[in-house]
Amino acid sequence: MQMIRIGILGYGNLGRGVECAVKQNPDMELAAVFTRRNPADVKILTESASVCSISEASEWKDKIDVLILCGGSATDLPEQTPAYAKSFHVVDSFDTHARIPEHFANVDAAAKKGGKVGIISVGWDPGMFSLNRMYANAILPEGKDYTFWGKGVSQGHSDAIRRVAGVKDAKQYTVPVQDALDAVRKGENPDLNTRQKHTRECFVVLEEGADAAKVEEEIKTMPNYFADYDTTVHFISQEELEKDHSGIPHGGFVLHSGRTGWDKENSHLIEYSLKLDSNPEFTSCVLVAYARAAYKLGQEGVNGCKTVFDIAPAYLSPKDGAELRSSLL
Amino acid sequence: MQMIRIGILGYGNLGRGVECAVKQNPDMELAAVFTRRNPADVKILTESASVCSISEASEWKDKIDVLILCGGSATDLPEQTPAYAKSFHVVDSFDTHARIPEHFANVDAAAKKGGKVGIISVGWDPGMFSLNRMYANAILPEGKDYTFWGKGVSQGHSDAIRRVAGVKDAKQYTVPVQDALDAVRKGENPDLNTRQKHTRECFVVLEEGADAAKVEEEIKTMPNYFADYDTTVHFISQEELEKDHSGIPHGGFVLHSGRTGWDKENSHLIEYSLKLDSNPEFTSCVLVAYARAAYKLGQEGVNGCKTVFDIAPAYLSPKDGAELRSSLL
Repeated sequence: MQMIRIGILGYGNLGRGVECAVKQNPDMELAAVFTRRNPADVKILTESASVCSISEASEWKDKIDVLILCGGSATDLPEQTPAYAKSFHVVDSFDTHARIPEHFANVDAAAKKGGKVGIISVGWDPGMFSLNRMYANAILPEGKDYTFWGKGVSQGHSDAIRRVAGVKDAKQYTVPVQDALDAVRKGENPDLNTRQKHTRECFVVLEEGADAAKVEEEIKTMPNYFADYDTTVHFISQEELEKDHSGIPHGGFVLHSGRTGWDKENSHLIEYSLKLDSNPEFTSCVLVAYARAAYKLGQEGVNGCKTVFDIAPAYLSPKDGAELRSSLL
Repeated sequence: MQMIRIGILGYGNLGRGVECAVKQNPDMELAAVFTRRNPADVKILTESASVCSISEASEWKDKIDVLILCGGSATDLPEQTPAYAKSFHVVDSFDTHARIPEHFANVDAAAKKGGKVGIISVGWDPGMFSLNRMYANAILPEGKDYTFWGKGVSQGHSDAIRRVAGVKDAKQYTVPVQDALDAVRKGENPDLNTRQKHTRECFVVLEEGADAAKVEEEIKTMPNYFADYDTTVHFISQEELEKDHSGIPHGGFVLHSGRTGWDKENSHLIEYSLKLDSNPEFTSCVLVAYARAAYKLGQEGVNGCKTVFDIAPAYLSPKDGAELRSSLL
């Protein structure tokens, strides 16, 4: 078997998740991890793989089949994905929904120039949730879809709390509203505003001498992040935070309820849900499956930017068509 | 907009469902329904469409873009799908899992000969459930998947009961065992035998003078259909059967629980479920979405047999790539 040689660019939670996922896929091997840090300071888990400076990446052009970009969507990926798509098949988890069209265009131009495949916005949302929204809308056009996130840790909201004066540390959970979920499941097709879909639960460690009431008020009224939600703030000790809130769980639900029949007399519910102990590790697993797709598409001479919508499911699997048909169809 | 012209072959529950689904898709129109019955005896709902004898189908070669085959898997589709794939893009819902490889080979040869696209085994199982099994296995290879069916009407099991001497009419529901579902959701990865996954609930109308105890015994011990399950038999009147059990609901669950992390320390659950008021109407909706895919693939010059695994999701949607990326990704 020809092994698919994987490179990882960026070794945070996501990069480490990719490393773990590669280990579970017998047709893949980790070739190298590229880091902006001093490579000597970065310890990875895979003994057979190299740790290199990001500046050396171009030297690996012929030693890596797919480079998985594990940076952030705010500043890393908008630069990195088009830059590396000129020399490598790449996969990223770009998740700034509003900027996807622009990112797609940039990666498409670069990948076409390099004769490479660039798969963007891979993960679970965007990613598996998007796929489920798309399939459900195509199947039941007279329907409505709902996405609920959580219960899970929002890194962005946790960071926002940490920036409040008087806060030492914090963790924020996004929680779907059970009544809203139930109403959708019953086929009631409710119109739900932001506040009706999710609540936000914050666990906050105060700096010594900080004013709890003031911190709570500042969190609850923070525009964009909390003002539009029912927010609960719990003050806890650093020890409690570390003991009870050190994980990065997440998940959520995509529901689509639709009607069929000549007079729309029948109702149907499609529901997809994820319950994840580790958000970055699951995202990594999706990235790795799409890395296989990038490799296979590249072998067929395909190039340009792709999303999960453009890739036939079979490309994700190590099994061939006949095996898939006999075992999973 | 170029309308996709649909033909329906076979006008039972599935054919009528396709007719209703076509009405909900503004890029499609029903051109004709082909029947083995006398066309004059078949009343359809779409005023603009023709009803023709199956023997006239070949005359519609240039007036139909995709022919949706709505016959049964036992005897109709093994003959019809390869036969019509020589002249039309075709879609079927062939659901005899064990015979899919053979059916695929026959349709592939015929479709390649005719330069047409044949998409087989489309629906929800095989179909959407297969897709979810496949995606989940590709993403979490260190995992296990479970498919539960129901609660819903099994036509095959209802028919089997009706063949028992003394039975006038019957309806059979397949019911997933809640404890088994719960154990899977908890990530316990149970090994479940047939009896532990589903129960069978039968509603039976007896012929006058029939021996209820004998009928019940015969049902419960029927090999393949009931002997391996915990089966409940309720005797009811014909009126009750018609009032309370005239629908054809179905649904089910595909669950995949898997572990990630260097030492498999994290657990994840992927769950897909369907709750359907009408099994044939939902299947029809999936057939129609894949008819769009057959049409688009045909426009690109693709030919041969395909399954849901081979078709990029975007082909199912009337939206183009840019619209999909901005609205659903």
